[in-house]
Amino acid sequence: MPNPSAAMLVIGDEILSGRTRDANMHFLAGELTRVGIDLKEVRVVSDDRAAIVAALNALRNAFDTVFTSGGIGPTHDDITADCIAEAFRVGIDVRDDARAILQAHYDRAGSELNAARLRMARIPDGADLIDNPVSAAPGFSIGNVHVMAGVPSVFQAMVASVLPTLTGGAPMLSQTLRVDRGEGDVAGPLGQVAADFPDLSIGSYPFQKDGAYGTHIVVRGTDGALVDAAMVRLAAELTG
Amino acid sequence: MPNPSAAMLVIGDEILSGRTRDANMHFLAGELTRVGIDLKEVRVVSDDRAAIVAALNALRNAFDTVFTSGGIGPTHDDITADCIAEAFRVGIDVRDDARAILQAHYDRAGSELNAARLRMARIPDGADLIDNPVSAAPGFSIGNVHVMAGVPSVFQAMVASVLPTLTGGAPMLSQTLRVDRGEGDVAGPLGQVAADFPDLSIGSYPFQKDGAYGTHIVVRGTDGALVDAAMVRLAAELTG
Repeated sequence: MPNPSAAMLVIGDEILSGRTRDANMHFLAGELTRVGIDLKEVRVVSDDRAAIVAALNALRNAFDTVFTSGGIGPTHDDITADCIAEAFRVGIDVRDDARAILQAHYDRAGSELNAARLRMARIPDGADLIDNPVSAAPGFSIGNVHVMAGVPSVFQAMVASVLPTLTGGAPMLSQTLRVDRGEGDVAGPLGQVAADFPDLSIGSYPFQKDGAYGTHIVVRGTDGALVDAAMVRLAAELTG
Repeated sequence: MPNPSAAMLVIGDEILSGRTRDANMHFLAGELTRVGIDLKEVRVVSDDRAAIVAALNALRNAFDTVFTSGGIGPTHDDITADCIAEAFRVGIDVRDDARAILQAHYDRAGSELNAARLRMARIPDGADLIDNPVSAAPGFSIGNVHVMAGVPSVFQAMVASVLPTLTGGAPMLSQTLRVDRGEGDVAGPLGQVAADFPDLSIGSYPFQKDGAYGTHIVVRGTDGALVDAAMVRLAAELTG
């Protein structure tokens, strides 16, 4: 049985303008690989309602699970929650439990739960809240979509809340062979080994160090014995 | 007139598995902003023929220019060139000028232009080569699509070759105001200023430093006087 599939939707002008370098994609990719969920596609879109709704609907229909990051803060350009409600064709309003979480947080901090902050308690109908131990304002899950903050520390905490609720597959195992030859020199035998092990993913990544060329060959699969067998074969053909 | 639009397609299992953290998206985003081309969407897909062809066709039909990175090396999992040919419904074969570039490069290096390396001379019919001053194997441009390597140093060199051939728009100007107040405290006035300056993009980015909360407010637009006016207004309302 293939592993469950996932996609990610990164929302934010700041990524597309080059102001901010996204960190959440790389973090989520590693976490999903660890639990045996295959991240198949990532899309990055701007703070534009039509773009967000269209991308979300495409991804949630094509993959088992979708994770979003960004656009759930208190300011005018934070429109993710409204877009999710529109994509699911459900209503959205301030919800009492979300409001209570924010009220308690800002009471403790001695700040006011003003109108802008109250926007963060707007939750689409039928969603479940995702805990935010860092800065209180919750994410939420609706259908197969998990909506999380863009700030990396908050995103990571929310992923930690959500992951245990998902059914993973067989964890992906990987081994790396370093070969001190250029990619073009190993490509022939490598292609033959890849053809002989169709259940494994075999990738090659050239590097250059101290003026010499080399290649990292990465063998990935869920069957450890098969990964071992491919590594033995590659080592015999490409090294020594 | 709005600026020209662009999209990027990042191709590679290694990004989606978390093995490699993509660096090309952030680089390209900054370069395009500098020359007044608006990067509107990025997609990351795996080394899968159907996924690459579908994403490429969606993006090249929706945006003025598309940049791809990854999958043009010598190994079995480098299938980008064939996918581009399929998307454009044109043939693909080893091309003499690309072969000559590779032959000269490997002659100089004392290496063999073997069958694997010769794959890098496979170019879709009707494409123009993109120079690769780093490692010789060329990228190519076909229609509104520019196909480039995934290795960051090569990607960056190819972007430098391609950018001068594109028609840019008005360069995006940006100014940043640092406010020592939380995002929720500035969101109200900020939303009003954003509404009063509909031609500007105004974003807010919370930060935490030494235990204190603050917000960076970034005003972006192509009209410098308008950006200045918004900054004066924001400073008056949010600081002092």
